[in-house]
Amino acid sequence: MPTTAQATVTVIGLGPMGRALAGTLIKADETVAVWNRTPGTASPLLERGAQWANSPAEAIAASPVTLINVVDHDAVDQILSSAESVVEGRSIIGLTSDTPERARHTARLVADRGGRYLDGAIMTPAYTIGTPSASILLSGPRELFAEHQALIEHLATPTWLDDEPGRAAAHDVALLDLFWSTISGFLHATALARAEGISPTAFVPFAHGIREILPAIFDGFAERAEQNRHDDPVSMIRSIRASLAHLISATHDRGLDAAALEAMRGYLDRAERAGHGEDEVTRILETMSRG
Amino acid sequence: MPTTAQATVTVIGLGPMGRALAGTLIKADETVAVWNRTPGTASPLLERGAQWANSPAEAIAASPVTLINVVDHDAVDQILSSAESVVEGRSIIGLTSDTPERARHTARLVADRGGRYLDGAIMTPAYTIGTPSASILLSGPRELFAEHQALIEHLATPTWLDDEPGRAAAHDVALLDLFWSTISGFLHATALARAEGISPTAFVPFAHGIREILPAIFDGFAERAEQNRHDDPVSMIRSIRASLAHLISATHDRGLDAAALEAMRGYLDRAERAGHGEDEVTRILETMSRG
Repeated sequence: MPTTAQATVTVIGLGPMGRALAGTLIKADETVAVWNRTPGTASPLLERGAQWANSPAEAIAASPVTLINVVDHDAVDQILSSAESVVEGRSIIGLTSDTPERARHTARLVADRGGRYLDGAIMTPAYTIGTPSASILLSGPRELFAEHQALIEHLATPTWLDDEPGRAAAHDVALLDLFWSTISGFLHATALARAEGISPTAFVPFAHGIREILPAIFDGFAERAEQNRHDDPVSMIRSIRASLAHLISATHDRGLDAAALEAMRGYLDRAERAGHGEDEVTRILETMSRG
Repeated sequence: MPTTAQATVTVIGLGPMGRALAGTLIKADETVAVWNRTPGTASPLLERGAQWANSPAEAIAASPVTLINVVDHDAVDQILSSAESVVEGRSIIGLTSDTPERARHTARLVADRGGRYLDGAIMTPAYTIGTPSASILLSGPRELFAEHQALIEHLATPTWLDDEPGRAAAHDVALLDLFWSTISGFLHATALARAEGISPTAFVPFAHGIREILPAIFDGFAERAEQNRHDDPVSMIRSIRASLAHLISATHDRGLDAAALEAMRGYLDRAERAGHGEDEVTRILETMSRG
């Protein structure tokens, strides 16, 4: 293993995303120190000039700014705890997807050790890193973001959101929710189409047609929800319930589970029981609570 | 009430969609006969020159082609049964959203009475009718579609799918599934964002960002699912399950129901138990069955 020399940036965590980050930084002529729990994955990066650190502490000490991309914030906190005093005066950029609470907790841990913390949520897959389509949301001190903006821009197009460190993770969970709900809905619709004799590739152009009508619908919902108006008659709760009932029964007819649609019907039922049957579907924002 | 004269087209069912259809046909200089279970909604159309029919039979008899847009195929079949012999030699275009089975049943009913049947699924809201963004899928005899294509094009951009009359409804249910799953996911994500202090209008631009990465993902899923390959490591079942577990717990932390996400986790669990944990998420096409 090569010994650690002074680096310009450290990458801790060398899964597919961490390797993409480190590789892109090497390509951008940064001097990169790396550490990973299992050293094997580092080899291709070391061959390209990355410097191996023998511990998280050595890794963080090797440069002024460390990117951490590990499995969750438990792992992040373990790394920071083992590094202890070397965090002082250094910048940590956490790129590990977790909840806003955990991001805030990590920010406190870094501050307690005299460091500064930015939390980032990478919104696009590892293969996009270093391309114009890569996107990253960040929260934490604005001046800290400004300090490292050029470095971050090697990796992805950054959007700084707020000084509050949990804000990027808050966006991340809501966007992951939208992403996985949509993917799940698409795969469910594909299964239903296939059960009706429509092949996935025959179905997908029609799915794009649906996708294309969404922007105006999303914008309208958001605007009226924000004003607490629920008055667009195009999406009235009572008619959607009728449409969903047909759809659920058609899904069951084909032997498919319909739990996601049934969940929505449950939110609509509650809204109707609360006297909002003639209101717009956005009323279910109030009826999605547990219990 | 004016008496029925010979018309060029009949519209039965004058809800918001039926009124949009009839109104657009009047604007296109067609002579339109109309009937509705409750006559009141017809008045604005009658003022614009539509001819009132006193019964479904009189309405169908008034012209060579009848568009039917009523609540469901039970209502369609009732109308056709009450019309009986006047269906002979006439064209019926059913524009009522229901299951493929019901569309096929209606097609048989029309054939038994000596008529010809096209089934159509209108994919866009009533306010789009007569504009370039309106879209309608049709199935049934191709020559019958060709015969009425010009008439249909007054209303919406038509896509003829297949001679099999259930095919438009099959696309319709799968696309409604995708549409409502996505809308439900968007509203759920908006509720989660709001619980994190992000307002709906602050959240929506990021939601558009997610929407924009979907086309390539949909295309890739469809292509590999069709080839029964499930080998893109970007969306591996095991990692998605871990990500969903975080997401469900963050959703519950905010007091929100997570049934749709839990349904997806259930499909992933089944796929993993079947030995497909290292496969792509498209494996859940096989594990969405009931039971």
